[in-house]
Amino acid sequence: MFEFKIKKTAKDSLARSGVFTTPHGKIQTPIFMPVGTKATVKTLSQSDLEKLDAEIILANTYHLFLRPGEALIKKMGGLHKWMNWNRPLLTDSGGYQVFSLSQKKDFTQKSEFKTSVKIDENGVKFKSHIDGSTHYITPEKAIQIQHDLGADIVMAFDECAPAHSSKEYFEKAMNLTHKWLSRCKKEHEKLYKKSPSKKQALFGIIQGGIYKDLRVESAKFVNSQNLPGNAIGGLSVGEGKKIMYEMVETVIPHLDLARPRYLMGVGTPEDLLECVDRGIDMFDCVHPTRMARHGAFFTKTGRFGIKNEKFKFDKNPLEKDCQCETCKNYSRSYLRHLIFENEILGLRLMTVHNVHFLLNLMREIRIQIEKNTFKKFKNDFLKKFKHKNE
Amino acid sequence: MFEFKIKKTAKDSLARSGVFTTPHGKIQTPIFMPVGTKATVKTLSQSDLEKLDAEIILANTYHLFLRPGEALIKKMGGLHKWMNWNRPLLTDSGGYQVFSLSQKKDFTQKSEFKTSVKIDENGVKFKSHIDGSTHYITPEKAIQIQHDLGADIVMAFDECAPAHSSKEYFEKAMNLTHKWLSRCKKEHEKLYKKSPSKKQALFGIIQGGIYKDLRVESAKFVNSQNLPGNAIGGLSVGEGKKIMYEMVETVIPHLDLARPRYLMGVGTPEDLLECVDRGIDMFDCVHPTRMARHGAFFTKTGRFGIKNEKFKFDKNPLEKDCQCETCKNYSRSYLRHLIFENEILGLRLMTVHNVHFLLNLMREIRIQIEKNTFKKFKNDFLKKFKHKNE
Repeated sequence: MFEFKIKKTAKDSLARSGVFTTPHGKIQTPIFMPVGTKATVKTLSQSDLEKLDAEIILANTYHLFLRPGEALIKKMGGLHKWMNWNRPLLTDSGGYQVFSLSQKKDFTQKSEFKTSVKIDENGVKFKSHIDGSTHYITPEKAIQIQHDLGADIVMAFDECAPAHSSKEYFEKAMNLTHKWLSRCKKEHEKLYKKSPSKKQALFGIIQGGIYKDLRVESAKFVNSQNLPGNAIGGLSVGEGKKIMYEMVETVIPHLDLARPRYLMGVGTPEDLLECVDRGIDMFDCVHPTRMARHGAFFTKTGRFGIKNEKFKFDKNPLEKDCQCETCKNYSRSYLRHLIFENEILGLRLMTVHNVHFLLNLMREIRIQIEKNTFKKFKNDFLKKFKHKNE
Repeated sequence: MFEFKIKKTAKDSLARSGVFTTPHGKIQTPIFMPVGTKATVKTLSQSDLEKLDAEIILANTYHLFLRPGEALIKKMGGLHKWMNWNRPLLTDSGGYQVFSLSQKKDFTQKSEFKTSVKIDENGVKFKSHIDGSTHYITPEKAIQIQHDLGADIVMAFDECAPAHSSKEYFEKAMNLTHKWLSRCKKEHEKLYKKSPSKKQALFGIIQGGIYKDLRVESAKFVNSQNLPGNAIGGLSVGEGKKIMYEMVETVIPHLDLARPRYLMGVGTPEDLLECVDRGIDMFDCVHPTRMARHGAFFTKTGRFGIKNEKFKFDKNPLEKDCQCETCKNYSRSYLRHLIFENEILGLRLMTVHNVHFLLNLMREIRIQIEKNTFKKFKNDFLKKFKHKNE
């Protein structure tokens, strides 16, 4: 179980293609994982996701812990059974959400309750953004919740410091993350001994902010834990693309080749290409689904907003020759109308297209790696793909 | 074109089964037509509707006239092509919506603009609930808009008086409706001569409120116009079920057997059964789709609300043995979570179930009519179906 087999490594790049085996099936890497925050990838049914050939999706522990609670999901037979998703699943630890509550404006503004987060050595006390109730999560608790949820891949509980923290703070958060990783690992092993039939892979998370020496230290420590996968956290949180790519470059040489590397929260087409090139195997991000619900869509020439006046009478699909259900059936003109009217079908059709676009990009990336033409493909793609937002 | 063939008439009931032929195919009657207000049946894709075997859907002229405007839809090749629906389509005339603006609280409350409606012999002046802009619709204009939209069945422009109007007002509104019907018919014939390739069936609408003598007068007048179908309007607007059934009973004897009868805005399971029994062939209603989005669902034993605590740990589908996609794949527990979280997937899955329930009920009704067992089926169904709303 949890075998990672590398199929091909590019000659002129750190990109590689592989297969990661989980209890619910194999995933082809490099892979993009659509985010199903509350046990649903917003607007899509599980059958839609299968048709899109999503091999693995992600659910958020923080949200499911608060509602409906892991006890309910456990009682219903676990997340897979409850949500009727029989393919691989990954849950995050809740760490990122717990901390982003106290930092992200758009998150706290949604809540009518004053959120607050208090961190100590043992764990984190925070207030629910739903009802203001107080909760305390420790590394052990985070692992227990994820054990109850029952995903194939579970994540260690980490402290994700804000992008503009001081170096001292990043170091402190990193050290705490390392201590917590050891405790997560211990709890994970304990639970595995109790119920050996429930096989879950625990991935550790590298922190260290925007400081190369901290990132190296963290990569070495996390890698030394010999877990089935290594993740990079705390990036794509406002530090800028250049620094993000630098941090990935800094970390990768210190991670075993033989284990998958997961860059958390990253998922624009350009970032996927740049980070596959730097040796990343797994990605997740709410960006493509969230932007779809705001009417933005990907094409090979860049991002566009469907509300633009120029699409009013446009009989073309979102993208010519795109094989997604949206593009095979509906015009830009009709989609523009649906998004303007805030019709639910519009939100779904835009989501189908964007998820298809990213999953298709990843399929293409895997093919190009195997043909040894990835670098050229990447350069050609980025030349055409302008990041404009019309 | 627009041939109505009666297949079977029940012996102990006015119920009959038939086939109505339109340019986009045949519909089996009695039929329920899901409502696609803004050229989309809320939450469902056209492919979902085909899988549900919806034979005909309805779109609202009022909404499409205001946004995006009939000129756009005409330019895009008509409603069928624009929304990618290749089966029969019906558009209402906009009359009901124009008048309900000034009467329905829940409608005006949604709008930030004071709505107002001014009726004269020639037409109706009203303010858009979207931007407060003033519009004037005449019977001719209503037919022109529907001609541009291009549905298979179009409706005459009528004045739909509030349920609690005086008899004098109902009579006045009825007389105006009759005058307008003649003008609609004239405009319809004129447009048909201009573009004979665009075949549309115009249905007249019977008004008269809750007064039998007015309803009889209106039925006779509308029937005398020899249009391909007769519709009954102004019911299910607050007059109560008993009166509604009485009005249907009053009207039916004055309508040709050989033409379909359409009861507008009616669509609860009990009303469908009661009104099929009284000779109605066609129905439409937003109720099943709207209540789905509020978490209410139909079963053979009545209506239930998915938010009920008792469904929290319920692994069963919404209804046992139901063959809809929702029931084949998801539990009440998971659906309850989705509705609580206001997740779009939940809205869709509940809608799929309710639309399936009603379309399936109509299929069953047609089978029972053909087997000459409709009356027994109706009685057995209503005995089990309690109108509770838990």
